Amino acid sequence: MKHILSAKQFSRIDLEYLMSEARKMDTILDKWGNRMFDEKIMATLFYEPSTRTRLSFESAMMRLGGKVISETDITFSSQSKGEILGDTIRIVSGYADIITIRSKNTGDALLASQYSRVPVINAGDGSGEHPTQALLDLYTISKDFPGIFTGEKLKVTFVWDLRYGRTVHSLSLLLRNFPNVSLSFVAPENLNLPEQYRTEKDIFSDVLSDELLSSTDVIYMTRVQKERFPDTESYDAVKDAFIFDTTTVEKMKSNAILMHPLPRVNEIILDVDNLPQARYFEQARNGVPMRMALIKYCLEQQ
Amino acid sequence: MKHILSAKQFSRIDLEYLMSEARKMDTILDKWGNRMFDEKIMATLFYEPSTRTRLSFESAMMRLGGKVISETDITFSSQSKGEILGDTIRIVSGYADIITIRSKNTGDALLASQYSRVPVINAGDGSGEHPTQALLDLYTISKDFPGIFTGEKLKVTFVWDLRYGRTVHSLSLLLRNFPNVSLSFVAPENLNLPEQYRTEKDIFSDVLSDELLSSTDVIYMTRVQKERFPDTESYDAVKDAFIFDTTTVEKMKSNAILMHPLPRVNEIILDVDNLPQARYFEQARNGVPMRMALIKYCLEQQ
Amino acid sequence: MKHILSAKQFSRIDLEYLMSEARKMDTILDKWGNRMFDEKIMATLFYEPSTRTRLSFESAMMRLGGKVISETDITFSSQSKGEILGDTIRIVSGYADIITIRSKNTGDALLASQYSRVPVINAGDGSGEHPTQALLDLYTISKDFPGIFTGEKLKVTFVWDLRYGRTVHSLSLLLRNFPNVSLSFVAPENLNLPEQYRTEKDIFSDVLSDELLSSTDVIYMTRVQKERFPDTESYDAVKDAFIFDTTTVEKMKSNAILMHPLPRVNEIILDVDNLPQARYFEQARNGVPMRMALIKYCLEQQ
Repeated sequence: MKHILSAKQFSRIDLEYLMSEARKMDTILDKWGNRMFDEKIMATLFYEPSTRTRLSFESAMMRLGGKVISETDITFSSQSKGEILGDTIRIVSGYADIITIRSKNTGDALLASQYSRVPVINAGDGSGEHPTQALLDLYTISKDFPGIFTGEKLKVTFVWDLRYGRTVHSLSLLLRNFPNVSLSFVAPENLNLPEQYRTEKDIFSDVLSDELLSSTDVIYMTRVQKERFPDTESYDAVKDAFIFDTTTVEKMKSNAILMHPLPRVNEIILDVDNLPQARYFEQARNGVPMRMALIKYCLEQQ
Repeated sequence: MKHILSAKQFSRIDLEYLMSEARKMDTILDKWGNRMFDEKIMATLFYEPSTRTRLSFESAMMRLGGKVISETDITFSSQSKGEILGDTIRIVSGYADIITIRSKNTGDALLASQYSRVPVINAGDGSGEHPTQALLDLYTISKDFPGIFTGEKLKVTFVWDLRYGRTVHSLSLLLRNFPNVSLSFVAPENLNLPEQYRTEKDIFSDVLSDELLSSTDVIYMTRVQKERFPDTESYDAVKDAFIFDTTTVEKMKSNAILMHPLPRVNEIILDVDNLPQARYFEQARNGVPMRMALIKYCLEQQ
Repeated sequence: MKHILSAKQFSRIDLEYLMSEARKMDTILDKWGNRMFDEKIMATLFYEPSTRTRLSFESAMMRLGGKVISETDITFSSQSKGEILGDTIRIVSGYADIITIRSKNTGDALLASQYSRVPVINAGDGSGEHPTQALLDLYTISKDFPGIFTGEKLKVTFVWDLRYGRTVHSLSLLLRNFPNVSLSFVAPENLNLPEQYRTEKDIFSDVLSDELLSSTDVIYMTRVQKERFPDTESYDAVKDAFIFDTTTVEKMKSNAILMHPLPRVNEIILDVDNLPQARYFEQARNGVPMRMALIKYCLEQQ
């Protein structure tokens, strides 16, 4: 039985397979995925609110012809009544053919997979992993830079909160499969990438220099969450440190892309949305074909 | 791309077309709308709770064969986390083929339509518009009085809270397309129809006289919301001013109809439900074929 | 029109029919119920949270090909805004082909059925009934002990909170149809079975003796809800009175089964889950075919 639990589980061959599957899904998106899984039910268990991710998974399941049952009421869920996760999963896996779970606790998705009769997809477990986001990010990159698979050099720069941003952790893990991709990390010192995700080849900086900006193929911007800071002052001190406006983006290469997992706060000005480099809404949209590919990957393996 | 944003957007020809479409939908309701939109997904974004309206839209979409993804959790929605509406809409319109939005803020539906890749239906935007309710109201009237389209005289009387009742505003706008329909408005002075919706021909009163009652074809009753009043005393002073009991209804013409957008408070006594004039439950039910017609109107135009 | 309102409504013939139908559903579960009700919509109105029961009903409806509209937001529901239940039901029964209702108030399902244009299924009404749970419990028993229908002797023992546990009340009512089944009830005196559910043949005890344990075919365990007790002390005094661990279960007959409506607190230790007697997860899973049978029973009668 195949589960989707961590960005670490995928070999380069897996990644190439999944990207190719997502491309196929993109072409049959409007044709309802050939009704591939007409007779299947997905349960979306979201113990942490995330409307975008949930709707993206539900849309993907429906585009494949499937149906969805959902628990999103955090306050009144069985979980909040103290039921242990294993019991919930054993019960729900009797109702559905695949389970997508989002939780506040690192490791919950792995735990769920150990009790489940059906495949489990990790839709984010606390400060742990968010593998499907990383995969759709990679898919987005590969649409603009298909050469990533054939050894073409590519420079990816991550900016802003690289310490708490789990999408950065997961995507950087995936990109380690491609020696032709070099990674740069730009963040205030206390918000930079945790040690365990670093390699010797990486470049670190607390300033996004014009040189870096103009030589990068992919900028992966993140947002900073105010609640990460000890007090308002320390947040205010850095909150405007990295803001992309049209002037910033004009310094990027003309064929470079600007990504963001969204939602944004103020780190990308609205004017940028219409520039050719802006790729964040397309990126969000790529979640549907990528998740269709992942659902197929899990369900056809059974 | 066609959106449903305001009662003002419909010409008389549009209205006749939509009523005719709704009639067709009424006949195929049990046949599942011929599975017309089997491959389409509707997103219902309800940033203000309205179970009845949401379920009515979802039922309409499903009767056409379609599927539904939904966000109704106000507290935990992306909106409450400060995401700007435009971003949400751009993202969700990558997941769904049509968006139905309900919000507390006037103008949100219009704003949403400007960012959406897919048609947007306004399911009520604060004290602004509620065009689909007005259309199902007109549909209800036209089922009892098909002569409305062929110039037969018709007298419609609105009663009670005409100031805040957006369904009254929207329906009165639609009825302006029919010179053969005369409108009366009965309300306490401080709850009567806002100036911008009035015309010279209208009749205003703060009392529902027996004469008016017995000469009207359609009574459109509304409820008064306690929270509109500055204090309990001023509410208590008027709260029982307009109550329909069987005695009141017996003064109506035998073929007249009594409508109400529901929910009611105490302004229509339960005994009235079984009288032949009571049309409010049928009216609610008419929401399904009318919304099926509107979904078709939006989706087939693409 | 057939409603499912109470365990009392079923004759022995009805029960045998429904068990046979559930068995059929079990065999077509993976084949999507032959898409029997492809064109039908179920409304799940849950005015009391119960994720497991709701998901089980929704899965059952979808396995039959049907669609689901749902209201689960207790705080913002029309009910909480003071709308009377009859109005809600009259409206929703214009949107759906069958209604499943869960409420805090005993009698709400019966009331709903009186206003509904479509079949109503009681998914638990306060301390009243929970007939579909009782039916799936009976179905679970009948899978291990098919002889129950042909007069074979069977000994069923209920343990723990038999006073407030409505599943115990409903299941005991169903089992009264089988004179070959003898019932024992084990509970602290103040938590034992209410008088109206007792018969002369029943055995009562406040201790689960080894003799009873080793001679019983079906143990039906329940949980005690802390909030039923006047204070923490009285709860603490009994909370560990009945705990099934592997030692306890080893005293059961080898072909006996241990049931529990779930969720559990601490009354069944996790180690027991892997013993051959443990039947509670299978029991939960049986909810889907049983509810498929009930939906068919209601919809095909129309």
